[in-house]
Amino acid sequence: MLIVGERINTSRKVKGEPVIEAAVHSRDAGFITNLAVKQFEAGATYIDINAGTLTSGEPEALEWLTNVVMEAVDAPISFDTPNPVALELALKAYDPAKGQPLINSITAESERYEKILPFVLEYKAKVITLAMDDSGIQSDPEKRLSVARKLVQDLTAAGVKLEDIYVDPLTFPIGTGSDVAVTMLDIIEKLRAEFAGVHIIAGLSNISHGMPARKLLNQAMTILCMGKGLDAGIVDPNDRYLMALIAATESLLGLDEYCMNYISMSRGGAFEGL
Amino acid sequence: MLIVGERINTSRKVKGEPVIEAAVHSRDAGFITNLAVKQFEAGATYIDINAGTLTSGEPEALEWLTNVVMEAVDAPISFDTPNPVALELALKAYDPAKGQPLINSITAESERYEKILPFVLEYKAKVITLAMDDSGIQSDPEKRLSVARKLVQDLTAAGVKLEDIYVDPLTFPIGTGSDVAVTMLDIIEKLRAEFAGVHIIAGLSNISHGMPARKLLNQAMTILCMGKGLDAGIVDPNDRYLMALIAATESLLGLDEYCMNYISMSRGGAFEGL
Repeated sequence: MLIVGERINTSRKVKGEPVIEAAVHSRDAGFITNLAVKQFEAGATYIDINAGTLTSGEPEALEWLTNVVMEAVDAPISFDTPNPVALELALKAYDPAKGQPLINSITAESERYEKILPFVLEYKAKVITLAMDDSGIQSDPEKRLSVARKLVQDLTAAGVKLEDIYVDPLTFPIGTGSDVAVTMLDIIEKLRAEFAGVHIIAGLSNISHGMPARKLLNQAMTILCMGKGLDAGIVDPNDRYLMALIAATESLLGLDEYCMNYISMSRGGAFEGL
Repeated sequence: MLIVGERINTSRKVKGEPVIEAAVHSRDAGFITNLAVKQFEAGATYIDINAGTLTSGEPEALEWLTNVVMEAVDAPISFDTPNPVALELALKAYDPAKGQPLINSITAESERYEKILPFVLEYKAKVITLAMDDSGIQSDPEKRLSVARKLVQDLTAAGVKLEDIYVDPLTFPIGTGSDVAVTMLDIIEKLRAEFAGVHIIAGLSNISHGMPARKLLNQAMTILCMGKGLDAGIVDPNDRYLMALIAATESLLGLDEYCMNYISMSRGGAFEGL
């Protein structure tokens, strides 16, 4: 599973405090470096960077984050912004020797699609496609699926390789209706059946918004989604229990031959105390 | 989800010691009572009793266990034996006011089927059907599915209600092949599609036999199976993390309206420290 580490995001709070935003404001490179290194060591494939809560200065902040993360770890970056100015500045600062960049994200909203697509093509980036269009997120599963389908078709027609596309089916929080997770699982299953080569990704903590004991819901949802064909996640790689369950699920789904990764994680102490 | 508490089983060892067997041998009612109460309080719907490792005296041991568990908790019993003599003695001692008994288990092995069926009918019991026949457990998913299908058809033809049948698709341990869990998930999905009213159950710790960090594999497998339609499990209800993940999964699958059970478990402290 491809793990996009979500922790460098100015909207994240720790014990109610916007500590990431504060670190970005004050250009505290040590704080950001620590977050990048911790996520990388825990198994993050990509380090996501998001400075979206900054009402001004997002482009410069994203450029700065790019440089700090590149200095900190030898991992590619996920550029998390709908802002083309910020995206351009950050991508220009990025050294592709770190790996293929990931643009997070494009949608079927006309303006966003038109403004983001050129960067995907110019930087030969992987891209996360959110299944939403100018009318927002469709609650009807078939309609949301057709938005996702159209995005895949349009992007491949524009020259993006299928294996560079990461479709995010999106979900409403479980507190808004008993069927929202089932709807998401249904969309994942159908996408997997329809596009064998495409990747399916999700921001797996959205489902538990507003609920108690969010980690348990996030963990269970991750496993359910993997069972339907999800192969990438935007998650907190420092949730050791989640990472352990992902490794267990990969073994069970036949994605870890002879359970070698699972056994090696166990021997290395990754499951200690869980 | 129907939870069958698996802990009163003479084959279970604690830190390598056969403590359950010893307690049954010495008729230590306090020890067994404690196990029954703990499982019941943790959410077990049924208390399973198994004295199968006793080379002689299994019938009397199972009868004794029946009386001890009935005295300990107000929960129905799962009678876990292939031995018709033990089954009869235990069922005779059982008070149906405790709830419909569960017979664990019948198979398509000719002799076992013929000897166990009369008890299912006479005691109007629920019954676990293991998908195996005289040739053992089929590794081919279609063949194993057809054994399960025939059992459901034969039992309903004999007068057992579909909703009293708990099909166990069985699995080999994941260490024996990368595809064994996928095979089991595939069988569950097909059974669920074919028999809307039947229950699907599994002994969810078999998958991790011989592996390190077994709990993680058992937890992930439980969630994957629930995603395909499993609605009952033979598990350790005192694995608090497993029970929490089961509750989370029920919420996600739309089986816990408004997440009321999940929220109430959280408020009651069931997730504390997890």
